[in-house]
Amino acid sequence: MSPFSATAYAPATVANLGPGFDVLGLALASPGDRVTVEHSSSPGVTLKAITGHSDSLPLDPARNTACIAASYVLRQIAPEAGITLTLEKGLPLASGLGSSAASAVAGAVAVNALFGSPLSRIELLPACVEAESVVSGRHADNVAPALLGGVVLVTGTTADAVHRLPAPPGLYLAVVTPAVAVPTAQARAVLPATVPLTAMVHQTAQVALLVHALYAGDIALLARAAGGDRVIEPARAHLMPYLTEAKQVAAESGALTTIISGAGPTLCAFCDTQRSAEKTATALVAFYQQMGLAAQGQATTVAPDGARVIDVH
Amino acid sequence: MSPFSATAYAPATVANLGPGFDVLGLALASPGDRVTVEHSSSPGVTLKAITGHSDSLPLDPARNTACIAASYVLRQIAPEAGITLTLEKGLPLASGLGSSAASAVAGAVAVNALFGSPLSRIELLPACVEAESVVSGRHADNVAPALLGGVVLVTGTTADAVHRLPAPPGLYLAVVTPAVAVPTAQARAVLPATVPLTAMVHQTAQVALLVHALYAGDIALLARAAGGDRVIEPARAHLMPYLTEAKQVAAESGALTTIISGAGPTLCAFCDTQRSAEKTATALVAFYQQMGLAAQGQATTVAPDGARVIDVH
Repeated sequence: MSPFSATAYAPATVANLGPGFDVLGLALASPGDRVTVEHSSSPGVTLKAITGHSDSLPLDPARNTACIAASYVLRQIAPEAGITLTLEKGLPLASGLGSSAASAVAGAVAVNALFGSPLSRIELLPACVEAESVVSGRHADNVAPALLGGVVLVTGTTADAVHRLPAPPGLYLAVVTPAVAVPTAQARAVLPATVPLTAMVHQTAQVALLVHALYAGDIALLARAAGGDRVIEPARAHLMPYLTEAKQVAAESGALTTIISGAGPTLCAFCDTQRSAEKTATALVAFYQQMGLAAQGQATTVAPDGARVIDVH
Repeated sequence: MSPFSATAYAPATVANLGPGFDVLGLALASPGDRVTVEHSSSPGVTLKAITGHSDSLPLDPARNTACIAASYVLRQIAPEAGITLTLEKGLPLASGLGSSAASAVAGAVAVNALFGSPLSRIELLPACVEAESVVSGRHADNVAPALLGGVVLVTGTTADAVHRLPAPPGLYLAVVTPAVAVPTAQARAVLPATVPLTAMVHQTAQVALLVHALYAGDIALLARAAGGDRVIEPARAHLMPYLTEAKQVAAESGALTTIISGAGPTLCAFCDTQRSAEKTATALVAFYQQMGLAAQGQATTVAPDGARVIDVH
């Protein structure tokens, strides 16, 4: 007999990683979103409730990524069936932490689990990419790490374009989100249409160095490469309040480098100890508050695994 | 007592590797240049002879990279001493195989050996970069692999910017040089000054994939990434006679991908067996000859070690 209910968790993700703009992403150990799905007599997906960071989240299932991904999977594995979906948002919206991706992935994994997980993890990618495309463009640099965990290279949006890279032990991250809005569309619009060839060469060198550092397990080199972006961050810096000062605060707390997570406003500081990640998170939250901005932050690590089924009954 | 004579060998190198323009290079098992140095009563470096592929090579020691690098090392380790230098060119000039770099590296290593090798291998890098800069710009993507062997990532021209990457076993290369001139200056001049941001993202994805493939030891993926350049090769294709046809010939001989070596005209085809590398080299030479162009080619592999001292007596 089919289970009655399934709950899945999908983690926040840091996309871009400096010079890895649009191609690299990593999964965080926390925070994350949870989706619970239950059988329903109404066909398709009915959104039952959203809890947590739910301000301004679309209640229309056609605009909610958890519902879109769930519907996509449902059509594949049980086209006649109906489910209700409850979304527990652990992630703030529009924070640069892959909020829409986490919801999509949790939705896809939960529905799959409710029907006995007929699809493999990577087979859920199209559903997640489709959902992501409705709210923030067709890209996989958040959904792929949320689905698979670790550090992921995406050279496209299909399964064969997703490559797991090693996550070095000893990498600790401070992730801090100030309460400012940086709409993704605006963060895209400020990017240059073209870049000098020399800048392209620099970016390719830095991203090659970043991948090398991941394999070498060299945290200092990884931080140097992640901090080596000369194209994206300079174009977006003016959208991020107090960016220069915040990076300085992080450095003084022991962070090796600090990058913008996704399109911001979240900052992600790379540290080589748990202690310096905690110190950096605390210092950055205090700094933003001093500047009159509410902020939330935490020390975390790279999650080696991505989404997980946390309850089926 | 100091030895009388020292001979060093330095290999040909393939720089660029598709999307790794200006940042990746690899050392070939063959061909290479040899430099022999002997003590002399005249201070400094005297060029005694050049043999082999010596057409149009500058006899002026101030323009000859073997002599420039040798002088640089001599000033560091024995500023009062004098040597004579004999260069045996195994590499054709201006072929895109790092001819000037091989001479520079062989010169630096030979002088160091004559005086008991007081400098480490990487400490010879500045001499080689300096020599290279006189004839083809200040860059290390040929001299670093010629000096160190294997596949090398260069993010600058100093020792801390040189990173050894793994050379996957099972990679075989067909290296074929048609008798056409592609001056490096012209090959530089045809490059675009700026590239679309989307092209930059594509190139960073491909170079990240290339480094990942090297570590994963995945030859097919490596070839796919190396062939993924959309910026440099398209701009230079018109300088390379019959490029499209030659790539087709290589593919039909079993090559996985074919790239321009350095600034050309040499082509480097990536193969996964010795046999297909041999077949590709033979087919490409025959193809160029059919088109009325003399050509020389061979099947080779990545040299795990770079320059070596082959005789001291």
